[in-house]
Amino acid sequence: MIIAMEPGAEREHVEAVIKRLQQEGFQVHISQGVERTVIGAIGDRTRLKADMVAAMPGVEKVVPILQPYKMAARDFKPEGTKVEVAPGVTIGEGEDIHIIAGPCAVESRQQLLETAVAVKEGGASLLRGGAYKPRTSPYSFQGLASKGLEYLAEAKALTGLPVVTEVVDASLAQEVAQVADVLQIGSRNMHNFALLKAVGRAGKPVLLKRGLAATIEEWLLAAEYILVEGNFQVILCERGIRTFENYTRNTLDLSAVAAVKHLSHLPVMVDPSHATGRRLLVPPMAKAAIAAGADGLMVEVHPNPQEALSDGPQSLTPEEFYKLVKELKPFLEAVGRRLGRLRDEAEVRSSLSRS
Amino acid sequence: MIIAMEPGAEREHVEAVIKRLQQEGFQVHISQGVERTVIGAIGDRTRLKADMVAAMPGVEKVVPILQPYKMAARDFKPEGTKVEVAPGVTIGEGEDIHIIAGPCAVESRQQLLETAVAVKEGGASLLRGGAYKPRTSPYSFQGLASKGLEYLAEAKALTGLPVVTEVVDASLAQEVAQVADVLQIGSRNMHNFALLKAVGRAGKPVLLKRGLAATIEEWLLAAEYILVEGNFQVILCERGIRTFENYTRNTLDLSAVAAVKHLSHLPVMVDPSHATGRRLLVPPMAKAAIAAGADGLMVEVHPNPQEALSDGPQSLTPEEFYKLVKELKPFLEAVGRRLGRLRDEAEVRSSLSRS
Amino acid sequence: MIIAMEPGAEREHVEAVIKRLQQEGFQVHISQGVERTVIGAIGDRTRLKADMVAAMPGVEKVVPILQPYKMAARDFKPEGTKVEVAPGVTIGEGEDIHIIAGPCAVESRQQLLETAVAVKEGGASLLRGGAYKPRTSPYSFQGLASKGLEYLAEAKALTGLPVVTEVVDASLAQEVAQVADVLQIGSRNMHNFALLKAVGRAGKPVLLKRGLAATIEEWLLAAEYILVEGNFQVILCERGIRTFENYTRNTLDLSAVAAVKHLSHLPVMVDPSHATGRRLLVPPMAKAAIAAGADGLMVEVHPNPQEALSDGPQSLTPEEFYKLVKELKPFLEAVGRRLGRLRDEAEVRSSLSRS
Amino acid sequence: MIIAMEPGAEREHVEAVIKRLQQEGFQVHISQGVERTVIGAIGDRTRLKADMVAAMPGVEKVVPILQPYKMAARDFKPEGTKVEVAPGVTIGEGEDIHIIAGPCAVESRQQLLETAVAVKEGGASLLRGGAYKPRTSPYSFQGLASKGLEYLAEAKALTGLPVVTEVVDASLAQEVAQVADVLQIGSRNMHNFALLKAVGRAGKPVLLKRGLAATIEEWLLAAEYILVEGNFQVILCERGIRTFENYTRNTLDLSAVAAVKHLSHLPVMVDPSHATGRRLLVPPMAKAAIAAGADGLMVEVHPNPQEALSDGPQSLTPEEFYKLVKELKPFLEAVGRRLGRLRDEAEVRSSLSRS
Repeated sequence: MIIAMEPGAEREHVEAVIKRLQQEGFQVHISQGVERTVIGAIGDRTRLKADMVAAMPGVEKVVPILQPYKMAARDFKPEGTKVEVAPGVTIGEGEDIHIIAGPCAVESRQQLLETAVAVKEGGASLLRGGAYKPRTSPYSFQGLASKGLEYLAEAKALTGLPVVTEVVDASLAQEVAQVADVLQIGSRNMHNFALLKAVGRAGKPVLLKRGLAATIEEWLLAAEYILVEGNFQVILCERGIRTFENYTRNTLDLSAVAAVKHLSHLPVMVDPSHATGRRLLVPPMAKAAIAAGADGLMVEVHPNPQEALSDGPQSLTPEEFYKLVKELKPFLEAVGRRLGRLRDEAEVRSSLSRS
Repeated sequence: MIIAMEPGAEREHVEAVIKRLQQEGFQVHISQGVERTVIGAIGDRTRLKADMVAAMPGVEKVVPILQPYKMAARDFKPEGTKVEVAPGVTIGEGEDIHIIAGPCAVESRQQLLETAVAVKEGGASLLRGGAYKPRTSPYSFQGLASKGLEYLAEAKALTGLPVVTEVVDASLAQEVAQVADVLQIGSRNMHNFALLKAVGRAGKPVLLKRGLAATIEEWLLAAEYILVEGNFQVILCERGIRTFENYTRNTLDLSAVAAVKHLSHLPVMVDPSHATGRRLLVPPMAKAAIAAGADGLMVEVHPNPQEALSDGPQSLTPEEFYKLVKELKPFLEAVGRRLGRLRDEAEVRSSLSRS
Repeated sequence: MIIAMEPGAEREHVEAVIKRLQQEGFQVHISQGVERTVIGAIGDRTRLKADMVAAMPGVEKVVPILQPYKMAARDFKPEGTKVEVAPGVTIGEGEDIHIIAGPCAVESRQQLLETAVAVKEGGASLLRGGAYKPRTSPYSFQGLASKGLEYLAEAKALTGLPVVTEVVDASLAQEVAQVADVLQIGSRNMHNFALLKAVGRAGKPVLLKRGLAATIEEWLLAAEYILVEGNFQVILCERGIRTFENYTRNTLDLSAVAAVKHLSHLPVMVDPSHATGRRLLVPPMAKAAIAAGADGLMVEVHPNPQEALSDGPQSLTPEEFYKLVKELKPFLEAVGRRLGRLRDEAEVRSSLSRS
Repeated sequence: MIIAMEPGAEREHVEAVIKRLQQEGFQVHISQGVERTVIGAIGDRTRLKADMVAAMPGVEKVVPILQPYKMAARDFKPEGTKVEVAPGVTIGEGEDIHIIAGPCAVESRQQLLETAVAVKEGGASLLRGGAYKPRTSPYSFQGLASKGLEYLAEAKALTGLPVVTEVVDASLAQEVAQVADVLQIGSRNMHNFALLKAVGRAGKPVLLKRGLAATIEEWLLAAEYILVEGNFQVILCERGIRTFENYTRNTLDLSAVAAVKHLSHLPVMVDPSHATGRRLLVPPMAKAAIAAGADGLMVEVHPNPQEALSDGPQSLTPEEFYKLVKELKPFLEAVGRRLGRLRDEAEVRSSLSRS
């Protein structure tokens, strides 16, 4: 880290900082300018001490140089992480591009099964659907809870689609992990560290949505919480950040996708539905996400958006979803990738016998 | 709610909307303009249906008119809620102004006891200190956990100061409630609805910090989650929102204090330490908070900020804290209020015998 | 517009609002709910009166329904505006996709001519380069001014490339218009209304960058200022908005591209260089912009970014630019469009003789 | 400045950076860590070269240490600038606190004169009123232009109040300066550098509003543009920044007031009217501004807000203004200051004869 002392900082303050850094085991370089002293401290592998130094008298600014995440960093695993969810469903750099689709919330058995069949038909290789729903208002539909999980299990049995569903509290991680193939951490919970630790220990891949006010660095630190628990099956998901613009529900930050690809080895997906909040904008943003380098998409589909108990305005009908998937093809080709698809048992067996 | 149809929306789409609204029991008023039809729907007490209507074909925009929170609204309790934490420590409109002070985190028995004695001496009537700490990085100090709670209990026994400490997960609500007099919900957990429900049922007053990207409406809805559980002892706390400005850690939104006083009956405190992230800015913002109408302050104090395991740069030393409290006096007088102070047992007894 | 009265507003206040609306020629619909009165006023073609009504006693909220821009709105010209800059260089919906490339600032004759030749070679059909530069610091390079315009004229004579350059003050509009084929309004000047009016009267196409804190509505209103002056040759340019994220210079809002396509008939380009501020992110964002439906790109190219007097870190070298243009091809095909290119005189003549 | 090389940057890249820095006259200190090389460069008095170095291969990040403004910095003039506008009206640190009041826009002779008399009566010592108005929509009232200036001159003759009015284009600086005692730069023009230079040369004090998306550093750099022209009579004015919160028109950033007091010697005023956009919030924010250390207030007053051609909802009536000024008194006392007031000719003469 770099410590800039205030212009005219007292000599004893400068010396106190140097002494402390040396005591902490840092290698110290002092640059004495006309106006101020700047101190370089090498050895700050964790950035933990920056605040302490910043609180010392005469210190104007402490600038950390190292990125604070370690295991989430690209150089920790230069080749890129691949998350295998099911046969044929491996999410990561250079792999096929997968689409997670389904309703915002599981509302009923029929709604879910109908949607599951439809999105599989349309080209999705994973099914989404919230059994536990974090809602801004206590008066909004809060999800069917364990009943919703049952329906998800049934939808999976019916279609074979692996299931992505949200965990909203650490105490639910085990229950949800019994049904889900991928545990989703929602945007509002990205900073719920107890939850991050719990899914880190639940033994299932995790889809970590970016917090609506989280910087890229904070997002990667949230991933680090999961990695530290020994779970490396983490998929990031950009879903829009909060800005002053109000035509869209959030502002989709596609440059974050490219940035994360550079900074980290973790796969990144994009959710254009929550990002825009408007059905109309989902297809162009899905295409743009592919072009930006995303490893997959998460799209809300509802058989009847105007009856949806949440997020109707941003949900595609099955027909709109089919159309989108078709339109995505040339963009997949443009990035040299294919639409990932679930392999059924017969295929899996035959591929095993060949190998 | 108001439904604006698209210009040139088809007749059947307009009629479908009207029909649906009537079926849902709304009283419907149709305004036929030159360019478009606008439909007023009276009876939307919950705003739950707005999304469904917004998802119907031909609908351009749905504008809710009613505020979505009910029990947190000013007209639910026009006289203002007062939260009694301890004898002499009642927080609310027209009451004395209380200061919560203490370290960001409980770091050791000595650090906490020393700080507790100092802040009481200085004029605080509540002690803060995190036993469980939500930290952006998994490598940062995460708090002493139950050991930290023990020290808080000891500090309370020593000084008599009621204790405010954070609950970071629903599963900890009961444990923390055994020691804490006020359960704090931190900014990053304002949208952790499982936690909000848990503290709603824990039988203790709650200090609800505003989420760093939460609108005032969302903040009041988070309070509503607690109120709905039957717990009306909720104190709001503004602590800065995230903006593009980076000189300060957050941007303190003091207009939110005045706005909340208008919109809600709940007391509001201000935390100038987290809001600014700079010791230098804490005193002017503390004064401004009082002037803006806050019912109290929450200030970080550390006996030795440069050794603090978190938030050193924004922590006041005990001496700085004493100075601040002294300087606050004329501002308290200007708003016609006094510095609240804890009454000790003798006083309580004597006041009881008088009454 | 819709006027929501406060709950319990006095009868005389409600009546005053109604009376006033009627006097202003509005058709008024009254909806009397249990808690409050909501008034619909039809005929508000300009939204001018909303503030006046909002200031009346008893009024809680005024919600405008109509969009405030008229000539910039899609329904004003459903078929889409096409801006013809030069033979072969027509920018707009369904047309070829054009690339504006060149240095941030004109720094010297050699730098500009060299870059101009290079970007033409690489596939650009318009040349950018600032002669007048708006710079945050008075100590930064402010541009070569009229000398810079001379060099731009020379570069145009040499390569045939039409020139896009910024006007930073109304008084310069005429001078710049003598050299420029497209007048650029920079992000910081999007709300400089005197300048908007001046370029509206300058008789040249205008490239209107989105203000860094401007909503889509405000951006279209800025376009409206130009349209109102009779100049319909307006090209919008998204270049990132200011948010809390600091890894990128700005946050590129590609959903705004799709939104503007829906709301307006004006062409939209994207500047991934200013949006991201990082060379590394320019190619993926250029591709994503095409996928999102942009009608063109504006890319900074410098023969030697590390000597650039401004914006070096986000400038591509000519080689990187060539590579990008090559990589764009499949994305252009995916959206069913081609790279636009300038036609030279011989082609123009031959095409004229054919027609 | 500090240059962090990428982890594993090539030796030749590191050497190229060092060589270049030395050629530019920097004193260079190299810190060789395990993972990366960090280079400290002393002598970067202008920060101009940071971008060039950032564009060199192998460079990860360049961190400027010096603040980029010089003449606006506190250490340039530690004692604080005082701007004398008229006898008795000196704005600055330790001086009396002045209130600028008046309508948003000059709408008519009568409206202005009536308001001028009222605000003087109420305690204002400067009159505000826009003759030229920057408006988001071309269809909104754009001001009375030179007729408005005439009325302002008349109002000044009538009441003696010095006049503050906005310059919206460089070409108008001279005309406005003939009437105005203080030239206002509006928020949307804070980055209009041609205008900043023009008012820097106009020979009148300048009230520089903070841009709605400007950081404190950018705001001080805008001031620097004026100072560089030789005009040191600059008053800063905080008026709210743009954030995601939409209950208020902007978010008033009072910590910026305290920050600017620390970073700069220039006086700072606060405009609670534009900051909040709601009449209701003006009084509490005016009080908070005083408590935060502001040197003055700018408040919108209109004799009949519901007829105001702009900003009615945030304008106080004269009666509300009187009430506010009265209520401010204890807060002025709390900060040890008094309400500034214009001295009339007799007072001035008598004070001169005494001295």
